[in-house]
Amino acid sequence: MIVDFKRPSFHIKYLSSLTSNKWIRLALSNPIDMLIDHAHCERKAAGVAIQLMFRYPSEPDLAEVLSPIAREELEHFEKILYFLKDLGHSLKALHPPPYGAELSKSIRKDEPNRMLDSFLIAGLIEARSHERLSLLALNSEKESFKLLYNSLLESEARHFGIYWKLAQSKYSKNDTFKRLEELSKIESKIISKTFSMPRVHS
Amino acid sequence: MIVDFKRPSFHIKYLSSLTSNKWIRLALSNPIDMLIDHAHCERKAAGVAIQLMFRYPSEPDLAEVLSPIAREELEHFEKILYFLKDLGHSLKALHPPPYGAELSKSIRKDEPNRMLDSFLIAGLIEARSHERLSLLALNSEKESFKLLYNSLLESEARHFGIYWKLAQSKYSKNDTFKRLEELSKIESKIISKTFSMPRVHS
Repeated sequence: MIVDFKRPSFHIKYLSSLTSNKWIRLALSNPIDMLIDHAHCERKAAGVAIQLMFRYPSEPDLAEVLSPIAREELEHFEKILYFLKDLGHSLKALHPPPYGAELSKSIRKDEPNRMLDSFLIAGLIEARSHERLSLLALNSEKESFKLLYNSLLESEARHFGIYWKLAQSKYSKNDTFKRLEELSKIESKIISKTFSMPRVHS
Repeated sequence: MIVDFKRPSFHIKYLSSLTSNKWIRLALSNPIDMLIDHAHCERKAAGVAIQLMFRYPSEPDLAEVLSPIAREELEHFEKILYFLKDLGHSLKALHPPPYGAELSKSIRKDEPNRMLDSFLIAGLIEARSHERLSLLALNSEKESFKLLYNSLLESEARHFGIYWKLAQSKYSKNDTFKRLEELSKIESKIISKTFSMPRVHS
């Protein structure tokens, strides 16, 4: 049976590929694991923002934008936690997909390239999350899940925008666009290979 | 000249020693460095809470209390950031005192001891911060600094209470009290040795 899934009319144009039907099918069949995995993603995203603040403690105007991102990720983490609790579930460790670790390999080791790549990869992960949460918001079976994902997805797009602006404020337009294009292709390649587990970034 | 500094009427009873006049004098003479250092402390405390959530992803009722602590630390971090900006200063990297690293050496490597020690040490750091921010709130020269420290210090005591309750909820009363007493003595020994830099935990 070929299912025609709903797709968002808007997606972040810098993603080089759209998510496959195969991922959507797997995700919709495992709603609780997807939620638990997404809770872990929110927490990891808070960790990434804080880690960048640690790495560049004196970088102007960096902490001012990263700290509120980290707080919002944690708010979302807590929201999912209580949603899961209401359903009688709780957090558990899940084997993560290789996505994050694979992507990090593309971060160049020398500065200022390292900081640029870190911003762009953090942004691309937010962009991919936005696309996938949109798919879950549109296609989840239960109304409560649709509402939850809808309440989370807007900030993923906004966080992409913040990382993108950070990159543009500190690097030349040419460098940022060129590198984003390269990293976006790498991101699409990684995500196309890893859809065997029900995870947000599998 | 012997200065008689104001001391808080309340302090967390589990601290084994009071802060010396020498520390107070050094701290009051370096108000901006103290603020910058305290901003870093708030960010580190957020990092510690998130790290514990990462280490124990399926520990019941842990993330529910640690995530709000991390958010509050980040809020305080941002508050100090803007206070500094108003004064024409910004964050900069500061050489940290050995306090945190030294304390961490007392965390036992085996579970469940590791988790207990992690809670108690995180709590003791909050307790010491509470005592020292109280001293800064009482003795700072400028009213704006008094107000700022007053607005921050209450949550340090509350966070101590949260870590203490976490420990008590998961370990026997005897074990927690005995270990807290041991760690508190170690904390006092470390902090008595390291007052050469103007830092919150020097």
